Amino acid sequence: MTDVHSRNTAAAGQQQPATVVFFLSDSTGVTAETLGNSLLTQFPDHRFERHTIPFIASVQEAENVVQDIDDVAAADKRPIIFSTVVNPDIRALLSQSSGHFIDLLGSHTAQLEDALQTTASPEPGRAHGLGDAIRYQSRIAAIEYAIEHDDGQSIRALERAQLILIAPSRCGKTPTTMYLALQHGILAANFPLIDEDFTSQSLPEPLRPFVRKCFGLTFQPMRLSQIRQERRPDSTYASLSQCSWELRNAEDLYAMHRIPYVNSASMSVEEISATILQRMNL
Amino acid sequence: MTDVHSRNTAAAGQQQPATVVFFLSDSTGVTAETLGNSLLTQFPDHRFERHTIPFIASVQEAENVVQDIDDVAAADKRPIIFSTVVNPDIRALLSQSSGHFIDLLGSHTAQLEDALQTTASPEPGRAHGLGDAIRYQSRIAAIEYAIEHDDGQSIRALERAQLILIAPSRCGKTPTTMYLALQHGILAANFPLIDEDFTSQSLPEPLRPFVRKCFGLTFQPMRLSQIRQERRPDSTYASLSQCSWELRNAEDLYAMHRIPYVNSASMSVEEISATILQRMNL
Repeated sequence: MTDVHSRNTAAAGQQQPATVVFFLSDSTGVTAETLGNSLLTQFPDHRFERHTIPFIASVQEAENVVQDIDDVAAADKRPIIFSTVVNPDIRALLSQSSGHFIDLLGSHTAQLEDALQTTASPEPGRAHGLGDAIRYQSRIAAIEYAIEHDDGQSIRALERAQLILIAPSRCGKTPTTMYLALQHGILAANFPLIDEDFTSQSLPEPLRPFVRKCFGLTFQPMRLSQIRQERRPDSTYASLSQCSWELRNAEDLYAMHRIPYVNSASMSVEEISATILQRMNL
Repeated sequence: MTDVHSRNTAAAGQQQPATVVFFLSDSTGVTAETLGNSLLTQFPDHRFERHTIPFIASVQEAENVVQDIDDVAAADKRPIIFSTVVNPDIRALLSQSSGHFIDLLGSHTAQLEDALQTTASPEPGRAHGLGDAIRYQSRIAAIEYAIEHDDGQSIRALERAQLILIAPSRCGKTPTTMYLALQHGILAANFPLIDEDFTSQSLPEPLRPFVRKCFGLTFQPMRLSQIRQERRPDSTYASLSQCSWELRNAEDLYAMHRIPYVNSASMSVEEISATILQRMNL
């Protein structure tokens, strides 16, 4: 079976057999995985075994996939199929397998045709294809900018930043910066707040001209301490008192300089990023 | 209007007025944007003005959003709404606006309930929420690993890598590595191939123990030359002859060491990544 990556999701206190889920696409499979997984999270008591099969480009390949699906159905139970296949012939073939076929594109395409009073032109792969070359180049530039400006490594060209993420160590600056660069092409720097910033109660000097671009992160002290323990066990750096002190001072600093901030302790990278985009009007 | 980010997509040689599109969510809006944009790519002759409104958490907020939608409909034409709102009250309210309401979750949830013979438990935000804490930590670790091992900067801990991406300069190693880390938690290093690797026809020494983890990128010579020109105009590095020579030698090197590779010149980061996951069985 040409599975790309599979993962089991353990149900809370339950061990019923996993249901096999296929994400099928004639492009990358990113859209099928994204919406499919959104839908599956609504069934937290079920376990799923996920298989993504991207780039199904020919009827021959589709027939192989149908065989895989039918094998699962015969050996176990009918699998669930999330499809974003655009090609009508391939889609028709896949829909005749013995899985539960959920077509994530078809029905909505009809709704859109209705709304736009026109006919869709089905071509696979445009959603996550190269598409807009300028947007593509801007994402790459943003990633390089983010790497160069990670953790205050470079203060060159901070005036180019659309956003400067500031926080004590280990609050989630780096992954958030990378996500904003990769998904949204945002030029984002990040800058660590350290003890001397807190004792002076002033913003690090390189940030002062750009205070309106700053966004702060804070965290839950106990969890921050745990995360830091993994890095440097039994250090002052990881102690609960140090973490509490840094976070309290960081929050004071944000308030003093009217820097918007969120507590990222119980947020995913996507949630932190969406919050920042919204609050900073990016 | 609480729009987060908007973008116009210019149609090829056409200037009809843009249709306003809202992506509405009680979570991040990532899923609504992903599928919504997939659907919109099927209408390449139309221009769209996109607004994402995430975190619609209360009836009051939903009423404000309905007002925004109704304003657009009154001033212009009926906007298109892609919704992944899970909360039934908020969803009901939004669906009564004067936009074309396309519910990306509802109908498929019913199909899934049917397939799983059970009832969905609608709670927003799990898809892109913190969810599985272990997965979250692994993503963060992967991003840090990718930054540390970008462009051959560190050859420490290459044995931990699940993947080592190799290519001449500017073929797309860095964004692909970051995407694999961020979206899939893959520990990926990347390593540049340089002139001396080609003249010796041997793999760079640090890679030799890990040849089975290597994946190569190649490119289209003319486009590589253009991209390098932007960096270092009129340099040997950017010359077409140098780019052709490097790419030809890189391809020979891949073939000689049986390293799988793709030509990434006309692929998006998502496409390159999906191809690598599939070919490397990750």
